Amino acid sequence: MRMRKKKNLSSRMEKCAAVHIDNPQELKGKWSGLFGNDNPIHIEIGCGKGSFITGMAKKYPKINFVAIEKVEDVIVMAMEKAIGEELKNVFFIDADAETLDETFEKGEIQRIYLNFSDPWKKKKQAKRRLTHKRFLDLYKKLLNNGDYIYFKTDNRALFEFSLNSFAEEGYKLENITFDLHNSDYKDNVMTEYEKRFSEAGMPIYRVEATYLGWTDERKKPTLPEMMQETAAELIDKIKKQPKPKKDSEETEAPAQETK
Amino acid sequence: MRMRKKKNLSSRMEKCAAVHIDNPQELKGKWSGLFGNDNPIHIEIGCGKGSFITGMAKKYPKINFVAIEKVEDVIVMAMEKAIGEELKNVFFIDADAETLDETFEKGEIQRIYLNFSDPWKKKKQAKRRLTHKRFLDLYKKLLNNGDYIYFKTDNRALFEFSLNSFAEEGYKLENITFDLHNSDYKDNVMTEYEKRFSEAGMPIYRVEATYLGWTDERKKPTLPEMMQETAAELIDKIKKQPKPKKDSEETEAPAQETK
Repeated sequence: MRMRKKKNLSSRMEKCAAVHIDNPQELKGKWSGLFGNDNPIHIEIGCGKGSFITGMAKKYPKINFVAIEKVEDVIVMAMEKAIGEELKNVFFIDADAETLDETFEKGEIQRIYLNFSDPWKKKKQAKRRLTHKRFLDLYKKLLNNGDYIYFKTDNRALFEFSLNSFAEEGYKLENITFDLHNSDYKDNVMTEYEKRFSEAGMPIYRVEATYLGWTDERKKPTLPEMMQETAAELIDKIKKQPKPKKDSEETEAPAQETK
Repeated sequence: MRMRKKKNLSSRMEKCAAVHIDNPQELKGKWSGLFGNDNPIHIEIGCGKGSFITGMAKKYPKINFVAIEKVEDVIVMAMEKAIGEELKNVFFIDADAETLDETFEKGEIQRIYLNFSDPWKKKKQAKRRLTHKRFLDLYKKLLNNGDYIYFKTDNRALFEFSLNSFAEEGYKLENITFDLHNSDYKDNVMTEYEKRFSEAGMPIYRVEATYLGWTDERKKPTLPEMMQETAAELIDKIKKQPKPKKDSEETEAPAQETK
């Protein structure tokens, strides 16, 4: 079921044609041509109503921005902002985050912004979080080693998940803060959501992550070394127990292997 | 000014002689001999009243533990616990954390526990924090690459500082949690402080950090690349300003260089 579309949405969308890219995949490898210069390109995945991306585009005229958003009701507001501000360095697309490697070549963009991404709170939804391994692997196909992902959120659980995910996938973490608005970080451009949320006194979490092409040769043992002997003893005990009756496919399978 | 010593402290200390090592530096390279076996050795820096270290020693009889604590009034309580429990796998020393490389050879210990370390809240005290670069460098002289530092604290600012410090010094972070007592981590042994604190409903932060010998070849530019042109323009402006009067050694020095 989709949200009922706002009145006049299609005519409003049409008026934003100048900043909206219909077939972004056709621009793969050619984005600099669109902007008409070789300035670095930064993208925001999930730009919402566009306060952040238009704020950034205004603040940094020598950076090009591409904003990605799937919800028409909000991307239209973002585009209207960009047009109202007469910004020449920002375009909008509605690509799927999962297929961004079909839209950008590796090295074509230099930074990814993830702001207040959907936390997908349930464990079984973890795969949809934009900092899930699935996406962190994808970002390696877009950025060169040493480029940055800038991530901020008000969601403590998502932040915890994201720090672990970044670290696990070999990203180096920098400038971790648990309270952005009371930190030393001065270059913050706020999103609509952030404005409301931080005014209510809630902390904003933020981190910069960069993949340096580290490889982790060492694999952590399945059991901490301190428990290995205890585990060995446990396995011994289990072996000495009388064999249980086969009562499921699962217990049968390994038994067959030992033939 | 020192705390007034508790009554009978010296006689209580004497009764704990069996688990107290007076000259730990003499044991450098010989700790296994003291324990009489080749089991791994884990240390806790700042054991306080010893609930954690004695709890660990009891739970993991095949690990050897060395507890480090400078305050006699509390180390005596920790030692009395160890003796009361008849633990054979824990010894106590009052070495300075800063000189632990004089007490242990590299690779002689396999894990370091830092529990509720003093946060040293003032910025100018940062050097004293046990997760300051100064100490993280030292721990590399004690542990082999891939060994772990297990760190927990109730202090949010110290945790934030520590995550950044670990990451900056090339440690990989694992199992970061912002609320240990509501996390999946099952092997927790509590300290006295932790018991009181968590019973009051306050979250405990925890992380495992391991140095893998990563080297960070890439150096972050002093200014984010997005600002470089703006900075160049700024420098131009400054150059075009009339030269200020030389009024300090510092302004003279660069001027001389341009001769």
